[in-house]
Formats: sequence, structure tokens, C-alpha cells
Amino acid sequence: MDLDGFVVGTYELAGEFPLKDAARVLAAEQTTGTWTEVRTAPKSFEERLAGRVVDVDSKSGTARVAFPLEIFEPENIPGLLSILAGNFFGLGSLTRARWVDVEFPRAFAKRFKGPRFGIEGVRKLVGTATDRRPHCGTIVKPKVGLDPRGTARVAKEAALGGLDFIKDDETLTDQSFCPFEDRLRHVMDALAEAKSETGQTTLYAVNVTADQRTMLERAERAIEMGANCIMMDVLTAGFHGLQALRDDASVKVPIHVHRAMHGAMTRSKDFGISMGVICKLTRLLGGDQLHTGSASGKMERPADLPVLLGALRDPWHGLNSIFPVSSGGMHPASAEREHAAFGDDFVLQAGGGVHGHPDGTLAGARALRQAVDAVAKGVPLAKHAKKHAELQKALDKWGHETYSYESFKS
Amino acid sequence: MDLDGFVVGTYELAGEFPLKDAARVLAAEQTTGTWTEVRTAPKSFEERLAGRVVDVDSKSGTARVAFPLEIFEPENIPGLLSILAGNFFGLGSLTRARWVDVEFPRAFAKRFKGPRFGIEGVRKLVGTATDRRPHCGTIVKPKVGLDPRGTARVAKEAALGGLDFIKDDETLTDQSFCPFEDRLRHVMDALAEAKSETGQTTLYAVNVTADQRTMLERAERAIEMGANCIMMDVLTAGFHGLQALRDDASVKVPIHVHRAMHGAMTRSKDFGISMGVICKLTRLLGGDQLHTGSASGKMERPADLPVLLGALRDPWHGLNSIFPVSSGGMHPASAEREHAAFGDDFVLQAGGGVHGHPDGTLAGARALRQAVDAVAKGVPLAKHAKKHAELQKALDKWGHETYSYESFKS
Repeated sequence: MDLDGFVVGTYELAGEFPLKDAARVLAAEQTTGTWTEVRTAPKSFEERLAGRVVDVDSKSGTARVAFPLEIFEPENIPGLLSILAGNFFGLGSLTRARWVDVEFPRAFAKRFKGPRFGIEGVRKLVGTATDRRPHCGTIVKPKVGLDPRGTARVAKEAALGGLDFIKDDETLTDQSFCPFEDRLRHVMDALAEAKSETGQTTLYAVNVTADQRTMLERAERAIEMGANCIMMDVLTAGFHGLQALRDDASVKVPIHVHRAMHGAMTRSKDFGISMGVICKLTRLLGGDQLHTGSASGKMERPADLPVLLGALRDPWHGLNSIFPVSSGGMHPASAEREHAAFGDDFVLQAGGGVHGHPDGTLAGARALRQAVDAVAKGVPLAKHAKKHAELQKALDKWGHETYSYESFKS
Repeated sequence: MDLDGFVVGTYELAGEFPLKDAARVLAAEQTTGTWTEVRTAPKSFEERLAGRVVDVDSKSGTARVAFPLEIFEPENIPGLLSILAGNFFGLGSLTRARWVDVEFPRAFAKRFKGPRFGIEGVRKLVGTATDRRPHCGTIVKPKVGLDPRGTARVAKEAALGGLDFIKDDETLTDQSFCPFEDRLRHVMDALAEAKSETGQTTLYAVNVTADQRTMLERAERAIEMGANCIMMDVLTAGFHGLQALRDDASVKVPIHVHRAMHGAMTRSKDFGISMGVICKLTRLLGGDQLHTGSASGKMERPADLPVLLGALRDPWHGLNSIFPVSSGGMHPASAEREHAAFGDDFVLQAGGGVHGHPDGTLAGARALRQAVDAVAKGVPLAKHAKKHAELQKALDKWGHETYSYESFKS
């Protein structure tokens, strides 16, 4: 079957019908079919628009379903989701229904802009285009609990310590205890001071997540005020929110994409949407960095990490790549395992693992930077730590710790 | 604990910790905590903003967690979700994490408009404010495969048959084979013709689902053109998309809310967000009608239907109620079971169960209307059918059928 005129979804399906029939039900439900025969439309028209089963793989329990391009409204992402990820999840006859992959014809993908910067563009901004070491970043902690000056103070220490990247917590938007514009102004001033000492650019992803109109206004205002990066949450604000930011010509900075709420749809083995699909949609619509989970740490560790990295970094319709971000319980001692899993092109992001350093944020940032410098050169952390006191202290604190939430236990 | 200053989420949790500790981990992860101690902020400020566990119910495996109002940016719904439904779904230490309820202090809820019409408002528009029978509606079928004239022809028959409500399929937005404005114009003309014969108002929910800016433009254009209802998909276009439509003063018609993609997060027993939460958020943000699933039919049947109906119809912060919509494999013979489950205040919506009538759409619409008239009066369908030929034919075709997708099987 020539798939050039189709968007193709891959689905894990199980239920009361054999796989092939379950796939037919899905193809029908999502396009021209229903549960009983109707005769309101010309058969030829209906057949032209019908979804069709490409093939099934009974070993993996997956089926590929092709949707004719004509049924899509180009660029309407909520509309696209209603076809590729609509009602079928709720069909009583299915006991398993996951959307696990998507492929677009090149001409369709070319309608979208993809990442403006991608890995290479972000590396140029930060100054690591030739030095291919992993980037290292932090989230200002605590997530909430600092005012703008406090945030800027922590950010400055992180930048002085050699971090490439600083982000807001996803829960921080424009609350009265830490207003958006004040926070941005203080942090950018602090980063400029740090740069005058170090010569190094540190990106600050200020969180613009809101409804689409507010988000665009906030992003535009942030750019006017000198922001060098913005952050948005793609599942709470929507894929179309990301698309709107990317399509806004004035947003000339990288878009850091967070994925709060993803586990509500990615984590069940029975129903939902895979992180791989979220990676592809984020790339199509123009995210420059995306959280993927990590090979160690406090969050669920994705079994399909190589698939996610391929979706973000392999050649795909000529679109720029996305910088994967490993985060969630990371610390300097995590660098070896994460580097082994991600290679050089990723951002190792530690929050508590920077600010919780025995000597505070500046030392924690230095330790994290020392760790990525070491792994990029193939030097074991333990060896590198002998000449880098901050890294040594981090390894002493976290190097042998099995991750746990001990501090919250009663 | 006085909860007046808190938004309270209820969560089903299980994992490597006892329930109370799991709840503490969630409260920490979603607010001021992380996995290791950090000392960047004043303790007092951090404590003021921290989430706290209200209580746990080990029988149901649920915990209530209270989030101080101060950590929310009022009206930023993506921001609200990032707190109530953020990273915790992905915590490795949890093997079960579902967000199953939410409660807002009255002052917080009062910041939102709620449904403009609600059940009473929609009944007034349709003319059933005193006659309390269930509403009956249809989706034009096939979902895709009709042009604007074909859609209008089918809609007119449905209206002539006595239906109160007609909606687009969620996959139909503004495609070239059935453009939005043409479709709306033809359908509204057809409904005006039908009304001149019957005297009855039929609402047509034209699907405006798109990114927020396009959706608002489309809704405003639809109102200018005489639309008497609009439809939006709240999970693909976002809760903030619904909020934006409700906040647009020119959108003076009911908002029919569809829930394509909900199963990706509502259906797993292990991870996700309950339909009850989606009901409450939809009510807060102003949907007038919402699909809830049904007591029979082709979709998964919600075990918690009474909870959903309570969330939509019971008194809640003075907000208008939402008209629940039962759909998915419905037909005239479904009316008894659905009425027993929903009572009088619901919309019985049948697609294939109208257009698939042996004598076509007009007869199918009559049969569906006859069915709701009968159940509202407490007359058994079989008895009512003796004097109503269309209903009799519908019962003959579907009355004894166990629901199945037979027509799609190989």
C-alpha cells in the first residue's frame, strides 16, 4: 500500500475481537464508520475518506491504520488529535488501546515549522557548537517559595557555577508571590552579572504557560524584556499552544517544552498515548527542548528511551532535532548513567541535586558542570572528583544513594 | 482542618510507601518539595505555600491533598493543572496514581462563569422548560463523507422528525470537502425550513474546535451567521479553550462540549484523571452540555455515572448545571435503560441509531423522539410502539440486539 497520501497511526490493541478486526473497528470509528449501517452519503465519497488498516503485527499486538490526508484540516492540531486519538479509547470492545506511533507524509510534515533552533541552534547560543559536551541545567528550587529577588539570587549562583540552562518550575507562572515580569527582570539582570564574570551564556526558560492568548502576550513581553528562552507545558497548554508560540514571528528564542500531566496518559500499559507520539508532535510543532524522563532518578524510567531519542534526534522530514532533557531526581553522580543512555546531545537537569549540595547552589552547579565535563571526556567521575572538590562532595552525598523520598516519610 | 483557603484534590494512590506517605510525596512534589533537602528559601515562606495531606481513606485507597490558594495564578487553567495534575503521575515510587476529585472554595469558584445556559437555559431555548422530557439529538452521519448540502439535507430530516439537537462529528472542523461556513449556512437554512413546518427549535452545534485564536474567530463568525449552538472538544482544544469561549461576550449560545481523547486518561484503573474531574472542570469553565458515556451502548459504561451526574447537576457554588449527553451506540430502544440511569434531564443522542433506521433519517428521528416521549410519561416502549410505526420498526431492528461491531468483522 502506497502511504504517501495518508497519516499513519500505530496502535496497541486488544479486546474481544482479533487484532485485525479491532483495527478495523478503530479505523471505522475514527473516520466514516459507526456501529450500524447508514445510507445517508454516496458510497464512493465515504470510501475515499475511510480509514484503512495497513497491517497488523500480532507479536507486538500493534496495528497500523492509515487516514487519508483529505480528512484532515491542515494545521488544526486539535482536529488532528480528534481523528488520531479520538473516541476509540473508550470503545467497550477494547481492553487495550494505546496510540504508540505516528508517521506523516513529507509534504504534510513540511506544513509545520519544526524546532527553530534544535540542538545545533541551542548549542550555538550557548557556545557549545564545537565542544559537544552535554548541557547541564537546573530548575530553581524550591518550585514555589522564592520571590523574584530570591529566584534571581539562586539563578546567579547556578550561572556562576557554569550551568548552561535554568528553568522555572512548571507550577510557577504569574503568582503574586513571584510575579512574572519582576522575576524575569531580576533573573536576566542576575545572569548578565554572571556573564560579565564568566563570559558564558546561560539560558533562562521563563514559564509562559497559560491559555493561548495570555501565553502569546507573555512570550512577546518576555522577548521585549530580553528573555533568551521561554518554557511552556505542552500537555496542559496544548500542542496547539506550542504551535502558536512557534508561529509567532516575534518569539525568536528557544522553546523549552515541559510535559506536566503526561503520566496521566503515557504511563498505563492499557490505555493512552505513548511518549514517543508526544516527542514527534512536539518536534513537528516546534519545541527546541523536551523532557523525556531519565535512565535513573525519581521518575519512572522509560523502557523505550532509545525510541524517544530517535524521535527527537534522528533525521525526520528535514526538521531540526530536539534537545532531550533528562530530569527528575538527577544529581552530579547521575551523569555517568545518563550519558551512557543519552550520549553527548542532551541536557542533564538537576534541581535538588544542585541546590541540595552540602555547600549550596554555587557548589552544586559547579559539581554538575564538572560531572558533564568529565563524562564528555570519558573520565570516570570518581577520578575527576579527586581534583574537583565540589564534585567530590556531591558524590559523597549522593553517589551511593538509592533514590528515595526518605525525607517525606513519617 | 479548615479548607476554606485551599483547593483540595482527591487522589487514588498506591506504591512502595504506605498511603499517607505516598500522599505526602505527592503534596511535596506538586508544591515546595523535592527529593532532597534544599535550603534556598526561608522556611516560613516555603511552609506557607506547601501542599498538605488532609486525610486518607485506606478503604478506597484515596488521599485528599490541600493546596493553598496562594500558589495558584487565578484563572490560569494550564497552571492549575500543572499543580493538581502535574509530575506526580510519573513518580517511580507510585504504581497507581489517579486524580479522582477536586473541590474549590466558593470564593475561588466564583471567579469562573460556569455554564451560561445550563439545563434550564437550554430547555428555554428549545421550548421544554415546562415539558421535562429528555432531549433527543443526533450526530450527522457518516462522520465524514457528506458535503454541506448533504449535511443540511440530513439535518433537516432530523429536525422534521422532532429532534432537539444536532451536532457535527468531532472529526469535522473545516475541511475542503465540507467547509465550515458553507456547512453552517446550509444547515441553519435547512433548520429554519424545518421550523417553519414544525414550529420547533432545533439546536445545531457546529464544531469550532481548533487552536484558541482560530476557535474564537470561528465561534464569533458562527454567531454572526446565525448559529444557535457551538461545539468544542475540551481535551484536544484544552480546558482553557473552553474558558476562552465562555469568556467571549459575543458567544451568546450554548457550548456543547465533546470529550474526544478522554479515554486516554480516564480509562486506566492505574494512572490518569477521572471523568468526574473532567465534569467539574467543564462546569466551572462554562460548558452547557457534556458527553458522559451511557448506561448501554458501544462505549465503556461508566461505573461511576451517578457521581458524574452529581457533578453536572447537583447544586455547586451557585453555578448553572450541565446537560449530560448519553451517546455512543444509542438508538430508540436504548431510551428505557438510559432514562432509568439519567432521569429526565439528559440528552439521548443517537447517530447510527437514527440514520440507520430501516426507513432512513426522518423515520429514525421520529422513532427517537417517540421513545423519549414515552419514557418521560412512563409508558413502556413496546406499548407506545403499537401506535407509533417508526418506533416499532426501530424496536424490531435494534430492540433485541446486543451491541456489536458485527458489520466491521472480516
